[in-house]
Amino acid sequence: MAGKFITFEGPEGAGKTTVLERLMKDLTEANSEIIFTREPGGILIAEKIRDVILNKDHIEMDPRTEALLYAAARRQHLVEKVIPEINKGSNVFCDRFIDSSLAYQGYARGLGIDEVLSINEFAINGIMPDLTFYFKIDPKIGLERIAVNSDREKNRLDLEDLSFHQKVQDGYQKVIERFQERIVIINAEQTIDQVVSDVKRVLKDYKLI
Amino acid sequence: MAGKFITFEGPEGAGKTTVLERLMKDLTEANSEIIFTREPGGILIAEKIRDVILNKDHIEMDPRTEALLYAAARRQHLVEKVIPEINKGSNVFCDRFIDSSLAYQGYARGLGIDEVLSINEFAINGIMPDLTFYFKIDPKIGLERIAVNSDREKNRLDLEDLSFHQKVQDGYQKVIERFQERIVIINAEQTIDQVVSDVKRVLKDYKLI
Repeated sequence: MAGKFITFEGPEGAGKTTVLERLMKDLTEANSEIIFTREPGGILIAEKIRDVILNKDHIEMDPRTEALLYAAARRQHLVEKVIPEINKGSNVFCDRFIDSSLAYQGYARGLGIDEVLSINEFAINGIMPDLTFYFKIDPKIGLERIAVNSDREKNRLDLEDLSFHQKVQDGYQKVIERFQERIVIINAEQTIDQVVSDVKRVLKDYKLI
Repeated sequence: MAGKFITFEGPEGAGKTTVLERLMKDLTEANSEIIFTREPGGILIAEKIRDVILNKDHIEMDPRTEALLYAAARRQHLVEKVIPEINKGSNVFCDRFIDSSLAYQGYARGLGIDEVLSINEFAINGIMPDLTFYFKIDPKIGLERIAVNSDREKNRLDLEDLSFHQKVQDGYQKVIERFQERIVIINAEQTIDQVVSDVKRVLKDYKLI
């Protein structure tokens, strides 16, 4: 019996990664059939593609090239890691997936949600998440969290201004409207304990834990 | 005034590259406004992407990952080289472009012409060739030419069997039917001199030389 594919989405500073670490600690003890991953997930080809995307010498990188490279890395991670685990019957929890590309590149970067969806549909070839958690937070609060967290290594997106993060939120809103049947909204302005508890309750409702 | 974008397509052994070398020699003396190129065309990012595609360690490469990577390299070569030259008023002659992906990956590899067209449309964003030469040759004759040419370094595609090359031909046939308004068929079973002469006659008719 095939496992389920569960993705976690949200803007910077929503606490997604922290919550996933907590879930990994709590759930892998109780249930060994959950696999935690994120792109590129240690897959050689996907790591190489990510190197091309992130290389600081690549200042001429066109946004469409970048979107195609993300889709390529997604495909390879899916084929080499996610699909085999699902086929073994494991539930795969993935930190970010297609909705991030739609919100960030499709909407916030202006390439078009439909256009970015189209190349991602080619990449995923029918393997959509069974369930997606969207960590909803006011972009201002997310940015403030990042600012006070000195442990966090700032990435390129953390340094974008508030108007960009506002656009990401608007992009996610459009994605949620389109895929509402699989997306559960979590109030990420709560404490981490509360967020973890909300996520677990939904996972129980879906009989995933 | 913008230049024109002319692409050269055909199966292995059709003499495409040899003819382009002859054209480069003959035409650049007479007309300095022609630029000859082929993907990845010396563009850093496109070269890096090609390295990922061709790396012998990447035995797990999925066909869809590969198609997305080709589209990404195509995008970057287009943005950094082809479009700037066209905007300067040069005519750009390119050895292989979108039709190769449609025939080889879309049809011969079985990913689907429409699917591969879709990711390539994202990549080229409206920049289709103004004119395409298709070098038509019986796949058997093409393979025989490759076999007797000891100078030619055999690539991965040269080593595929006749049935694959037959499929490539069938794929090109479908591409030609779809884009007949821009594709001119050249009889590539003739001598190189005759082929060069036919191409030049068409270029003159289109007032490109």
